[in-house]
Amino acid sequence: MTGPSTYTTRRVTVPQLEALLFRELPVLDHGFLRVVDYMGDDSSIVQAARVSYGVGTKTVREDKALIKYLMRNRHTSPFEMCEIKLHVKLPIFVARQWIRHRMASVNEYSARYSILDKEFYFPAPENVATQSQDNRQGRADPIPPEMAQQVLRIMREDAHRNYEHYLEFLGGSDREEKDFGISRELARINLTLNTYTQWYWKSDLHNLLGFLQLRADPHAQLEIREYAKTIMDVVRIWVPSAYEAFEEYRYGSVTLSRTEVSILRDLLVGKGISKLRAELTKRDWEKLAKIFGLG
Amino acid sequence: MTGPSTYTTRRVTVPQLEALLFRELPVLDHGFLRVVDYMGDDSSIVQAARVSYGVGTKTVREDKALIKYLMRNRHTSPFEMCEIKLHVKLPIFVARQWIRHRMASVNEYSARYSILDKEFYFPAPENVATQSQDNRQGRADPIPPEMAQQVLRIMREDAHRNYEHYLEFLGGSDREEKDFGISRELARINLTLNTYTQWYWKSDLHNLLGFLQLRADPHAQLEIREYAKTIMDVVRIWVPSAYEAFEEYRYGSVTLSRTEVSILRDLLVGKGISKLRAELTKRDWEKLAKIFGLG
Amino acid sequence: MTGPSTYTTRRVTVPQLEALLFRELPVLDHGFLRVVDYMGDDSSIVQAARVSYGVGTKTVREDKALIKYLMRNRHTSPFEMCEIKLHVKLPIFVARQWIRHRMASVNEYSARYSILDKEFYFPAPENVATQSQDNRQGRADPIPPEMAQQVLRIMREDAHRNYEHYLEFLGGSDREEKDFGISRELARINLTLNTYTQWYWKSDLHNLLGFLQLRADPHAQLEIREYAKTIMDVVRIWVPSAYEAFEEYRYGSVTLSRTEVSILRDLLVGKGISKLRAELTKRDWEKLAKIFGLG
Amino acid sequence: MTGPSTYTTRRVTVPQLEALLFRELPVLDHGFLRVVDYMGDDSSIVQAARVSYGVGTKTVREDKALIKYLMRNRHTSPFEMCEIKLHVKLPIFVARQWIRHRMASVNEYSARYSILDKEFYFPAPENVATQSQDNRQGRADPIPPEMAQQVLRIMREDAHRNYEHYLEFLGGSDREEKDFGISRELARINLTLNTYTQWYWKSDLHNLLGFLQLRADPHAQLEIREYAKTIMDVVRIWVPSAYEAFEEYRYGSVTLSRTEVSILRDLLVGKGISKLRAELTKRDWEKLAKIFGLG
Repeated sequence: MTGPSTYTTRRVTVPQLEALLFRELPVLDHGFLRVVDYMGDDSSIVQAARVSYGVGTKTVREDKALIKYLMRNRHTSPFEMCEIKLHVKLPIFVARQWIRHRMASVNEYSARYSILDKEFYFPAPENVATQSQDNRQGRADPIPPEMAQQVLRIMREDAHRNYEHYLEFLGGSDREEKDFGISRELARINLTLNTYTQWYWKSDLHNLLGFLQLRADPHAQLEIREYAKTIMDVVRIWVPSAYEAFEEYRYGSVTLSRTEVSILRDLLVGKGISKLRAELTKRDWEKLAKIFGLG
Repeated sequence: MTGPSTYTTRRVTVPQLEALLFRELPVLDHGFLRVVDYMGDDSSIVQAARVSYGVGTKTVREDKALIKYLMRNRHTSPFEMCEIKLHVKLPIFVARQWIRHRMASVNEYSARYSILDKEFYFPAPENVATQSQDNRQGRADPIPPEMAQQVLRIMREDAHRNYEHYLEFLGGSDREEKDFGISRELARINLTLNTYTQWYWKSDLHNLLGFLQLRADPHAQLEIREYAKTIMDVVRIWVPSAYEAFEEYRYGSVTLSRTEVSILRDLLVGKGISKLRAELTKRDWEKLAKIFGLG
Repeated sequence: MTGPSTYTTRRVTVPQLEALLFRELPVLDHGFLRVVDYMGDDSSIVQAARVSYGVGTKTVREDKALIKYLMRNRHTSPFEMCEIKLHVKLPIFVARQWIRHRMASVNEYSARYSILDKEFYFPAPENVATQSQDNRQGRADPIPPEMAQQVLRIMREDAHRNYEHYLEFLGGSDREEKDFGISRELARINLTLNTYTQWYWKSDLHNLLGFLQLRADPHAQLEIREYAKTIMDVVRIWVPSAYEAFEEYRYGSVTLSRTEVSILRDLLVGKGISKLRAELTKRDWEKLAKIFGLG
Repeated sequence: MTGPSTYTTRRVTVPQLEALLFRELPVLDHGFLRVVDYMGDDSSIVQAARVSYGVGTKTVREDKALIKYLMRNRHTSPFEMCEIKLHVKLPIFVARQWIRHRMASVNEYSARYSILDKEFYFPAPENVATQSQDNRQGRADPIPPEMAQQVLRIMREDAHRNYEHYLEFLGGSDREEKDFGISRELARINLTLNTYTQWYWKSDLHNLLGFLQLRADPHAQLEIREYAKTIMDVVRIWVPSAYEAFEEYRYGSVTLSRTEVSILRDLLVGKGISKLRAELTKRDWEKLAKIFGLG
């Protein structure tokens, strides 16, 4: 499984990614992410684009320019020509967010067939934070350390107790007299959402970048963001030109609404702040002002 | 939300399904399923098929025959022309199986935005059963009633305790001194997998039948099967001809492998049991023998 | 087929769209587009969003604000909850572009089963234009009218001659002695790409807006753009709030790259034109300058 | 493009497929199919299945048995873990059938950007056949050779004339005085459906097998069947165990309707021909009788 062997291939190969192959990249307290296989590199994007557009010649510089052009103009299909397969260990509540990305293939560890390991995610104390008031789905400031420790103590007790009962249900506990021997598919419903699961997950590069755009975003839940960031590191190594274009044209981009475009144009041609500003919500205006250093 | 109003429409309409619209059809102990909207009926399948194949005339009898022909010959695209939207309340562990069907649209209640209700699924005592030995993913016989009650007592205690802690984490418990006020997205990871969630789920008929084929199957977990069976009742009312064809050509069908075809042919032409039988696994042979009443 | 009947329904209904139902909206010289069925309206988007986010109350004004919020922040799944079905007559070369949108259902008229009508698309003389030099895939200025007439004459002759031969191949021509009686699936390969075909096409609103974003764009080929524009008119009638949000946040939006954001900010805070400008291609700079009225 | 280089990789590698990589496998008169890249092998299916089901040990024999089990029981997701990328040259009318398989990635040569080659598909004389009477979409017997030659002569003339006009429209003909210089996207609509195009096409193994099931079937049009058969040869080399399981459980399988199961069972238990036979159409009964050698 850890693939100690090496082979000879005529397929496009990325030496830097080969070095990373099969290695467990740690995420969260017990999670990880391993690149198990991949197909294609930056040149595969160019190859597919050229059959469509026939454009360009073949220096590395021109390939890079073509990839930027494709990313900027949302010619997305060439990015589907690269594929990556990951082995991921992740808490169930993260898996529930992740699986919403439908354009991917997945084989998850089945708790109907096998017994889940006794591993749970508990946040680091500094990540035990209060509910954000302005972001209805987010976290704000850490709670005091001693309170965080209390929360974590309760979480640990609950997870472990429920797991202990899970084993008793299954008939796998230490004390035989407590064993029930019920089916795995039923016993597992007693487990907590922070229990770790694992899966093989395969996606093409276009859909992977869509995943990253959403899940590496500050609005994504911290835990899935940790996985997204690790994947970003992988993508940077795998397809450096595509990654750079992604950072420039998608991840670091700003989309302005029709009204915002008008407001900025008025400012730039010296007309001052247009009365269109009233059409923005307070929050949208503050966001715009912050990005562009407006009064 | 319960749509007391009626409107006038020129769209195809199914009176029998209208009567069912918005009604909560109970599933499991606290779950339900409501038909919220639909598009098309049996005639929509025929309409789409006719633009492709131009076949047939227009009596009801011929429409029915065309639907059977389409189902039998896996002309699946006309069945995509009907669409249904359900509002479903279901335990999280069922939602995790359900969501694997990717060709559907879903909006789930978000525990990052809102607080989950104090509702859990606990199996009926007679469904607390032992691990099946010949079906690695299934359930066998019920355990003794008093043991089932013990299992259920533990499950209830665990779910309720974890939920109580969830409320304390959020700052919504009864005893203020125990409140922590941490973010919803974090607090929820303490909940058990039998907690109820809900979603709007929309699928076309072709993919819905694929869902039913897998999830109404005896190998599916009992809990999701309950939802599948309720959906089958809905489909029977909504598109009776398609449903009948589904029962005949898919749900009640048997697929024989190349070898099994040869074995049956040999038997039918009087050659006796062919030595190909040795190529079947014991289990496959038993299955075949049972279906066709072989020695 | 033209649905003279009316029915009573409890489903959400859009009276303005009902008025349009089944009517052939002409596109190009012989094409059309008919709304055959639909599911949902603006309120369906809100309904699905609320099960997820639980936000907001229920005045029309707040619903509209929620739809804008969803569109702006790319919460796309609630827009999948509306569905529309179109009957479209379109030239084959347009169908070939259209079918690239994979997240839709389609049943096309099959020339293996039936004989195609003698109908072809010929551009209006003013649309017979030269190859654009700066847009490698586009059209520039019309060619002189008499030359356009010559082009059209040749196109007409070729389409008609090939169709005449198609009929002879099939055995359906006027002169029996010329009939060959070969199969339809083979005879049709003699037809030209401007021959009209037709299909039923069904899409959810989210994917429909993606189609419009690409196909109503000035870079799309004029002919498919005509269909996209007609669909935009339909969407405006069907889901007016979603349409307005689409115009504001997607169709009329501008996405700035990371570098472009920096350049604009420098200008807005009075730092003048940053040297980052050198990192833009000439074309990208001109585009930016044009949008924002930069020197 | 022909990949003369070899690299070192730790990814799973299939030596037999490496030998085939980049080679043009001829299909029809001018078409071809090249394997450009691939990911995974038989062991990748097993690897993904084991994370789900945890089953089995690791001998080659057991791997093979697991793959058969998965194929038989429609555990399809592990087959999604293998991916292949093809470069295909094919007539436009074949491309129009092929593209209906939506779960794939494709980049087609764009006639908006580039000029199509002067290459057309013309059937071999023995494939110029009459319309089938019992299969509304198929071909029956060849027409007399001299008539076939006439058909082919007309097809050739039409394709070449239309292409010559295409070049004149573009301004690329030999005689300058005839050049119009209109845009590529418009000029191409004059071409015939047997013109060759090409694309890069990428699919996972599960969806590829679905493609083969439909397109290698005798009911598929002869021309696309030629491509399907060539792909079958590739799959046999690439993933021999999966291919064998496909032949046994899908390609060579027979699906019996509920009624057909009853009829066969009655025969096998000595009850003779059940009156259920009346419920089958004449065609379905004949098919059944032929497969199982029934009187």
